[in-house]
Amino acid sequence: MPHLVIDFSANLADFPEAQILKDVNAALCTSPEIKDEADVKSRTHRITHFEIGAQPENRGFVHAQLRLLSGRSPEAKNDLAERIAAVLRKHTPRPEGMMVQLSVEILDMDRGSYVKERL
Amino acid sequence: MPHLVIDFSANLADFPEAQILKDVNAALCTSPEIKDEADVKSRTHRITHFEIGAQPENRGFVHAQLRLLSGRSPEAKNDLAERIAAVLRKHTPRPEGMMVQLSVEILDMDRGSYVKERL
Amino acid sequence: MPHLVIDFSANLADFPEAQILKDVNAALCTSPEIKDEADVKSRTHRITHFEIGAQPENRGFVHAQLRLLSGRSPEAKNDLAERIAAVLRKHTPRPEGMMVQLSVEILDMDRGSYVKERL
Repeated sequence: MPHLVIDFSANLADFPEAQILKDVNAALCTSPEIKDEADVKSRTHRITHFEIGAQPENRGFVHAQLRLLSGRSPEAKNDLAERIAAVLRKHTPRPEGMMVQLSVEILDMDRGSYVKERL
Repeated sequence: MPHLVIDFSANLADFPEAQILKDVNAALCTSPEIKDEADVKSRTHRITHFEIGAQPENRGFVHAQLRLLSGRSPEAKNDLAERIAAVLRKHTPRPEGMMVQLSVEILDMDRGSYVKERL
Repeated sequence: MPHLVIDFSANLADFPEAQILKDVNAALCTSPEIKDEADVKSRTHRITHFEIGAQPENRGFVHAQLRLLSGRSPEAKNDLAERIAAVLRKHTPRPEGMMVQLSVEILDMDRGSYVKERL
């Protein structure tokens, strides 16, 4: 059930999308919170139109949103966020002269109305 | 006010975006929860960079997120989720040898701060 | 920390993405809620596949989602939503014969599990 969406600004040239997707799924699938590895559905999204703050500094960002069924403990959420952050920290390019921000967000999904099936 | 975003993995070739958008809006607009049909704003989003789980199996997914102003009953949310699932179940391609996952998520939007107008 | 995502339907030709991003960041960065202007990460997203309601009328939309760390007062959320709406109201094209909807949504992000750093 977890859905992971990783946005990254297009000025992070050579952002290794395939590598990051593989590594982040591997990191999530070994968590005790994930019962079935096939449930982890991750995507990267290259952002071509963006603006960071209000100063002319050269800036980029990578942001991950993980959506989980509600009911996880704060400790479990922290652990999952840190697993994602570790992969992004490792693989995100740091272009010369660019300030790059990294963030990870966990969002609860309503468990009662969630539909899930295999076709 | 409802916002519907349908993500689908790009390996679901011939995913009928226009048909699904028409059918899902028709299904939502007949719900007693929807006061004005023009409020239903739906989009499909073809996902080219994705990874499902940590096994080499051939896999695809379709995931719908419906965002609604807060305050709906659990029954109303279940009904809306099932209307969406029914359309996706009907129209999603099932490529030979691919495991395809379908999911639907309902997310509350904060009613107090929501802005809505016609220009 | 704020993340702003502005979806607009592709039939709003000449939607001024760069201008709107600049103006909306300027409007947000002068809010007392924003401690560091560099935190505001905004993007526009042109939606090519969409359907609005169930009638054949010519329709378009622009929708902004602002995601903030939880804990803001209702008044602060209203003020931020209105800052965004004012920019969109000013710059969104109004094509002849098209009904254009504008909406702004504020979504809380879980503060406890949020990860944020500069690389």
